[in-house]
Amino acid sequence: MVLEAHLQQAVLLKKVVDAMKELCKDVNFDCSEKGLQVQSMDSSHVALVSLLLRESAFTEFKCDRATSLGMNVDSLGKIFKMCGPTDSLKLRWQNDADTVNFQCESGEDDRIADFELKLMQIESEHMEIPEQQYKVVAKLPSAEFLKVCRDLKEFGETMQIQASKDGIRFSVQGDVGTGNVVLKPREADKPEDRVTLTVHEAVTATFALRYLVTFAKAAPLSSTVELGLGPDSPLSVKYELENADNGYMQFYLAPKIDE
Amino acid sequence: MVLEAHLQQAVLLKKVVDAMKELCKDVNFDCSEKGLQVQSMDSSHVALVSLLLRESAFTEFKCDRATSLGMNVDSLGKIFKMCGPTDSLKLRWQNDADTVNFQCESGEDDRIADFELKLMQIESEHMEIPEQQYKVVAKLPSAEFLKVCRDLKEFGETMQIQASKDGIRFSVQGDVGTGNVVLKPREADKPEDRVTLTVHEAVTATFALRYLVTFAKAAPLSSTVELGLGPDSPLSVKYELENADNGYMQFYLAPKIDE
Amino acid sequence: MVLEAHLQQAVLLKKVVDAMKELCKDVNFDCSEKGLQVQSMDSSHVALVSLLLRESAFTEFKCDRATSLGMNVDSLGKIFKMCGPTDSLKLRWQNDADTVNFQCESGEDDRIADFELKLMQIESEHMEIPEQQYKVVAKLPSAEFLKVCRDLKEFGETMQIQASKDGIRFSVQGDVGTGNVVLKPREADKPEDRVTLTVHEAVTATFALRYLVTFAKAAPLSSTVELGLGPDSPLSVKYELENADNGYMQFYLAPKIDE
Repeated sequence: MVLEAHLQQAVLLKKVVDAMKELCKDVNFDCSEKGLQVQSMDSSHVALVSLLLRESAFTEFKCDRATSLGMNVDSLGKIFKMCGPTDSLKLRWQNDADTVNFQCESGEDDRIADFELKLMQIESEHMEIPEQQYKVVAKLPSAEFLKVCRDLKEFGETMQIQASKDGIRFSVQGDVGTGNVVLKPREADKPEDRVTLTVHEAVTATFALRYLVTFAKAAPLSSTVELGLGPDSPLSVKYELENADNGYMQFYLAPKIDE
Repeated sequence: MVLEAHLQQAVLLKKVVDAMKELCKDVNFDCSEKGLQVQSMDSSHVALVSLLLRESAFTEFKCDRATSLGMNVDSLGKIFKMCGPTDSLKLRWQNDADTVNFQCESGEDDRIADFELKLMQIESEHMEIPEQQYKVVAKLPSAEFLKVCRDLKEFGETMQIQASKDGIRFSVQGDVGTGNVVLKPREADKPEDRVTLTVHEAVTATFALRYLVTFAKAAPLSSTVELGLGPDSPLSVKYELENADNGYMQFYLAPKIDE
Repeated sequence: MVLEAHLQQAVLLKKVVDAMKELCKDVNFDCSEKGLQVQSMDSSHVALVSLLLRESAFTEFKCDRATSLGMNVDSLGKIFKMCGPTDSLKLRWQNDADTVNFQCESGEDDRIADFELKLMQIESEHMEIPEQQYKVVAKLPSAEFLKVCRDLKEFGETMQIQASKDGIRFSVQGDVGTGNVVLKPREADKPEDRVTLTVHEAVTATFALRYLVTFAKAAPLSSTVELGLGPDSPLSVKYELENADNGYMQFYLAPKIDE
């Protein structure tokens, strides 16, 4: 066995895959002793998806040699639908096998679902994503970000984001009028209800709303989302896993430049 | 500001708009110091929608001069979807502006959604609706009226309503057979569970079921609905707002005449 | 009145009809002093549906003379949708009448829905189904059987079932890979959570998954399902009514023979 990874909660990978499903058709899971990683442009080559599941996210993790396993995201979605809400997952790959094995087990070990998935050759396009210094970092409840994107999507295709110390404003101009949602910094007992803004410089940028809605649907992954903004730099939409040390799922989107 | 109206619960206007959506495309909101009023034929000119929101329904209401503001009902639906379930609403119109402003605020004032909606010129067809003296007035739970209309809709297109002191009978004759639902007068602890019939004269009349289903979907507006019936006179389907002094939403439908 | 049958819970017949709806268009209800019975091939003549409601299932049951009443299953579905969740049902047929009467009553008798359904002449094809001696009888939670069928349906059209003393394995081979779900015998406090296998001889057989999914949707009828398997003999999928003495709903499906 070159790769063997046990996940306490199969549902974590299910959410990850659901979040990629609308963007990517086939992806490479890059496996190394550090964990699992996916980096993929979306099918229209506009957005970038970046997933990191550190080995610490797994109850057991063994990877003898770095390798890339190409899989179809839709098929993964169907496999994880087989898992019950509390199932654990074992992922196994034998040296040079042309399939990878997924095994979901209910706690009591009296129901075992397994799937032998055929691997695919996917052209690797490994990208170096430079660590960005964002001018604004905004943390907000992920459910609220999803609602804002969905609501404004009704009125137009382009969303302007304006962020300053006073708050973050999402705006759409459409045929029937102009809509804005403003979130002000907000204290709250529960960290996941807070809105915090770290502002080095106020930023205004516009983005294709269609992608933002897709990113925002990753909300089940984490109760908060972190937006990273800079002038003329890609937007980062990042969901840290429950225990942030275990990894994250991150989306990047280039801004729309005014014609 | 010629018009400024504050509503404690944005959700009230949301329900009103949802109830009109299937019937009307564009409507005039007639504003005066008495409140807001809509009167509109449905697109097929068969049914009539009449809304009254008295100024007492608002926590603040100011209208310096009577005016008609033409709006697209679908757009209004999208705007009110932006409001959270406990949001308050501010409606504002400046003299001769070609837009009207909607602003939803969450209780804590840390989330503000606003929309600047373009106004439309809609040909005004103000109708005088004479106060009717109905032969039968039936009050019943609005959810029950909705279920009856939806269930019988499965079997045919025309519903006969027969009302007398003994009860109200809804009947449909269709290809596969004949269905009836009879509601008898019913006492109940909660007023909204009661069925009461005020009968001056027994009435039998038939109506296009399609419209009744649409009217019945206004059920979220009120836990009870009041049907007004007379021989050969239009049916009235009326939903009084929680506090009846604040206004009502009412639908009228001409009876089908037997060929 | 030749036939008069009162059912405490209209919802029982609703579930029965829902379970037949996808398979049969029109069926004969064979009425006798023993109760009601339906035997019908599905429209593609591949599967067989067999329903028995013994007279003990009814609070009152009277059938003066054996008769077959032909009804449209879709219409029955619409009729039972009229019943509330706690309604009782009266079924009545007068000698040689060309309609049968269904009457749903809410507990308090203040809401009565009735339907006069036109009967149909359906060619009777009464089949004698021989009592089978199955090599394997497996009892499992009906919800779990439904999930297995639905999950595996995503990957292919044919399901192999392998049953032995160690457990029951459901497998599908498809374009993207091979999936298996294994249920091992399982003790549980609640009978409906148990998995039990009575094995005279290990059996392997394959079936069209499409039908299994349809059968499995009868899950609301009973918390457990009983699978009967033999080599080269039809699969039986049986749901006993809550009180098994009252009857059952059973599906039969011929195995796929390997080409």
